[in-house]
Formats: sequence, structure tokens, C-alpha cells
Amino acid sequence: MAGGGGTRLWPASRRKRPKQFLPILPGGQTLLGATVARLLPLVPAERILVVTARSQVGEVERCVPEIPKANIVVEPIGRNTAPCIGLAAVDVMGRDPNGIMAVVPSDQYVTDADTYRQSVARAIAVASSGDICTIGIPARTPETGFGYLERGDQAANGAYALTRFVEKPDAKTAQDYVASGRFVWNSGMFFFAAERILSEIDRHMPALGKILSEIRKNRGETDRLYPDAPSESIDYGVMEKLPAGQVFVELGDFGWNDVGSWSAIGEIRNSDENGNVPTGETVTVDAQNNILYAGEGRVIAAVGVSDLIIVAEGDAVLIMPRSRAQDVREIVKALEKTKRETYL
Amino acid sequence: MAGGGGTRLWPASRRKRPKQFLPILPGGQTLLGATVARLLPLVPAERILVVTARSQVGEVERCVPEIPKANIVVEPIGRNTAPCIGLAAVDVMGRDPNGIMAVVPSDQYVTDADTYRQSVARAIAVASSGDICTIGIPARTPETGFGYLERGDQAANGAYALTRFVEKPDAKTAQDYVASGRFVWNSGMFFFAAERILSEIDRHMPALGKILSEIRKNRGETDRLYPDAPSESIDYGVMEKLPAGQVFVELGDFGWNDVGSWSAIGEIRNSDENGNVPTGETVTVDAQNNILYAGEGRVIAAVGVSDLIIVAEGDAVLIMPRSRAQDVREIVKALEKTKRETYL
Repeated sequence: MAGGGGTRLWPASRRKRPKQFLPILPGGQTLLGATVARLLPLVPAERILVVTARSQVGEVERCVPEIPKANIVVEPIGRNTAPCIGLAAVDVMGRDPNGIMAVVPSDQYVTDADTYRQSVARAIAVASSGDICTIGIPARTPETGFGYLERGDQAANGAYALTRFVEKPDAKTAQDYVASGRFVWNSGMFFFAAERILSEIDRHMPALGKILSEIRKNRGETDRLYPDAPSESIDYGVMEKLPAGQVFVELGDFGWNDVGSWSAIGEIRNSDENGNVPTGETVTVDAQNNILYAGEGRVIAAVGVSDLIIVAEGDAVLIMPRSRAQDVREIVKALEKTKRETYL
Repeated sequence: MAGGGGTRLWPASRRKRPKQFLPILPGGQTLLGATVARLLPLVPAERILVVTARSQVGEVERCVPEIPKANIVVEPIGRNTAPCIGLAAVDVMGRDPNGIMAVVPSDQYVTDADTYRQSVARAIAVASSGDICTIGIPARTPETGFGYLERGDQAANGAYALTRFVEKPDAKTAQDYVASGRFVWNSGMFFFAAERILSEIDRHMPALGKILSEIRKNRGETDRLYPDAPSESIDYGVMEKLPAGQVFVELGDFGWNDVGSWSAIGEIRNSDENGNVPTGETVTVDAQNNILYAGEGRVIAAVGVSDLIIVAEGDAVLIMPRSRAQDVREIVKALEKTKRETYL
């Protein structure tokens, strides 16, 4: 899944160019490129589909030239993950009615690719036996920015029964979750047979099911039919509605990072001898522990500052302390409020 | 004088677009525009000449459209102030052999325009009687970034005898200067008859005098002749060589600011209710006492930072504490050293 927008890494990420397309990883790799590279030892490029918005097809082709163009599944308009996954499932069914799908977001970073592939392979095995599986990340810190999954006992298939999806908790609840040991972070990855997810969509999201069924009969009508799909996440639209015992969770302890704010860049990239984490053209004098991100054709010069995030991309510049990385949203709100959304 | 380059307000000012052309004053006025506006009650536009580099003629026309195009004196190449003033003197002689010149830099800010014009009028009166005059700014703080003038007794013409030009002093010397009461800052303004300065150039800078004399005979040859002029300041080339008693100094206590660094912008522009001094498009959240300068087509967003200078112009961004405004030169040096002078 490489559609959607996002401004959490604003101004590098914009509504029209979200973070999966940015060269933020070491060596200038993109999150989308890294996601595909991480899966290639497990799944050949011919069997990797990338679902994206029409306006972002060019970015996808640029970031992952190894993916055949016929494997780029185009959403005429963004409609959240349930329609996106449904559209991909229709495509998979056309290729192989017994096809098993591994659905992974394209904007996550993983430190330990081997362990990642082992988790993915186990989840695919669960899906191959007809069940629905997800991957949960062992929750070691009480993050309030993630959804959580509560797991029950280990099942015969080796995975854990998933007993409950929970939304982003408050700080106190998150601490309880971590203390309990039964909660894991929801990675947003899902594994199932294409046929199974389409039948669950028929059951729990009949309006979407009807649209997908028509698209399945006539793929040429996608542009006309898809925009009527309800904008809904697969979590809320399907997963949370499945009876207990029908969804399983595999654990994935592979250094997962959802790159949800500029702080994450300080975690996934190496710092220089002064603790600065530079991307692009930068000049620093007496500056320590800053995250510096200069987009193409930009240079950032910093003198005598510490622990800042400094981003220059296109028409916009952002400066804030690393401790306030979440507050990009305050800027986004302020720009919306003052009718300057063109900067977003 | 509106030629020259400068990077003290980098990255807003560049070698090719120095500070006199930037919209840094309240209301987006430029220093050149303000300089002309300040003189207009004293000198009509028809008698104001602007000397500038060929590459900057467009900037001059944009900043001071009230100046007749025939009054823009073009230097084929920058050669410091002595050739620049000489070239202007040749132009003045062609208009009026008895012409008196008031030579003023175009990149200085003045708070009290009335007092300024009174000082200029007194200096012009001194020049009209055949003498050479300058304006000194009462030195109240021991600045080390300015040259100083030592003044002697008051003369019959009402001005003070200028006894010595001194270069930028060290901190201790500057303190002694301020304590003595006899030293004033060298404003870089000069007043003399065109004929007088040409004859002093002939005497003290004969090579330049010869070139100017040829240009005077054939103005069409300026492009060929001028580049051979020695690159020298009028202070060093002529003024410091004149015998004591031949140069006079008028005092000018009119809120003079040479806009020598980004700190100056905090002095000449008003701050908002949070102490921020914004220019251009800016968004601030929990940010205090910052100087923010967003060039055309740029937006600066600052969250949770204080006492910083943040500048975005064209391809470059600068961030530093207000207390380190002088250290732009460290960045300039670093860019030169790393062969990235295209940013300067």
C-alpha cells in the first residue's frame, strides 16, 4: 500500500508527496524502496503489487523501478485501506483465484530484515491455511501514537489468537498495556487469501463488496465505480468485526519504526561526529545533535544551535526542538486556519 | 553608491544581490529606496545619480523607479569606492563643472530623517566652500565593526577638523575611543566638489586619475578603460592621504545603522506580540523573540524556539542564535572551503 497522503514529515512530506516517496533512509533510499527490497528475497517482483493513487504512479515508478508497470494497481481516488485492499484482492483474484496476500504499508522502517521476513513467512503460512493473520510488534514502551492488539493463547497454527483491536490509548492505559505483556502494537500488516478477504468485505461492508464485485466483472469501469466506495480502514471495516478466534497475530520483534515524526529520522539514520543527522546539503558550525533535512536544490546552514529539527523542502522551512517533533500538526493546523493549505 | 556585493545578510543577500536591494525595511522598503526617499526633500530626483554594477541596473530600476534612467551610472565591473566616486564625478562634471557631490552609501538605515538631512545640508555647505567633508556618527558603544574618525577643534566653517582616519579597532581600543569623546564612527559619506575630488585623485591615485581623464574625454570608452582602475577605497586611496586640516567632519546623531548583520533587522523592524520580528510568510507556535525572514515564495514555520535568526531565501536556509549574528561569515568561509560558492 503506497497511496494516501501525510504531513507528519512536513514540509518534506506533503499531501501530494507522502513520506514513502522521500529519500530519508541511509543512502537516500525511500521507505517504499526499502519495503520492496526487504520483501524481494521472499517474493519475486512479478508477484509484488503496489497500490497507489493515480497522481503518485510516477513516484512509485521512480522509487521501485524493479516492479513491473502492470503490477501498479491504481486507485482513481484515495479511499482508505478497506477499498484499497479490496481493489488489490480483485487484481490478485484475476491472477490466481487461490492467491494469498501479504498486505504491508510502504512507509515503515525495519532494522532487522531477516527477522521481519521470518515473521512475514509465518504469517503467510497462517493465511495459506485459510485464516486471517496480522503482525504485532512487542510493545516495550507505552507509545500513545499506535493502535494496540490484545493477544490470547497460542493457537494450533503457531500464531496467537487476536482477542481485541484497541485504538490509540492514553498514557495511563498504554502503561497498563505494556505492563500486562498481552498487548502488541498494531503494525497494520495483514495476511489472508484474496478470496477470504473479499468474502469478509461482502459480509461486513456490503456496499464496498458490491462495488468490488462489479469492478471484478469489468475492470475497465474502475474509475467510475471506485469513487463511490466508502472511505474506511480495513481495521474498522472488517477486522474489528470478525468474531474472536477468527484472526491471529504473529509476533514481530524486528526493530519496527513507523517513521511517524521527524524524531524517527534521528533513530533510523546515523549521526555525524557532532551528533547531527544530516540529509542533503548542509553546513554546520558549532552545532550539535540536530536533525537537518535539506531537500533537492536546498542548502541548510546552522550555526551554534543544538537539538533542533531543521527541514527545508521546496517552498517551506520548519524549525523546532527535537522534543517537539509531534507538533508539526500545530503548524499544519495553523496553515489550514490561515488559508495557506497550498503549503501542505 | 549602490554597487558592490555582500554576504553579511546571507542567504537573503548574495554576491549578486546585496542588501541594499532587499525588502528588509518596514513595509517591504529597500535600503536603496529608503536612502533616495530620505534625500528627496533635499535633492530632486533629477540630481540624484545612482552608481551601480551593470548586473544590478535592473534591481536599481525596480527599487527607485523615481530616478531617471539616465541618472544610473554604470560601473562595467566593481572596483571599490575610489573608482566608483571618480566615475560619478566625471558624470557630474559633464552636467555641471561646479557641481557639488554628496556621496552616500545606499545600504544604511537612518531613524531620524530630519536630523539626517540637517547634517547632510551642513556638510554640503562645507563642500560648497571648496572643502572636503564627511559625517561622523557619535560613538556611544565600543563597536569593533566600524572604522572611526578622530576629530579636532571646531573650524570656522562650523565643522570639526578631521585629524585621523582609523581602521576597525579591537575591543580595548574601541572602549578608549568612546571614553575619549573625540572619536566618531566613519559613516562612509563624503561631500566635495566634483572638480576637487578629481584633482585629489589625480594627485594621490595618478593611475586612476589618468583613466578617469580618458573616460572624461570619451565616455563611450568606459567599458574598455574602467576595468583597469585599481580596486581601492576612497578612504585609503585619497582621504587618509590628505594633510590634516584639509578634511572636515560634521556630526550626525540621527539613529544610524549600517545593517551589518541580521541582528540589525531586530533593531530596525518592529516585533510582534511574542517578540518575533517576521518578514514574509511565517507561522510561529510557542516561539519568542526570533528574527524570521522568508524570501519571496517561501514560508518559515517555527515551533517552540526562541532567540533565533531564521532566514530562507532561494536555495538556502540559515539558522543561528541572535547572539551569533556575526558568524554568518563562518558559514561563508565553510561554503568557500567546500567549493560551494554558488550558494553565496
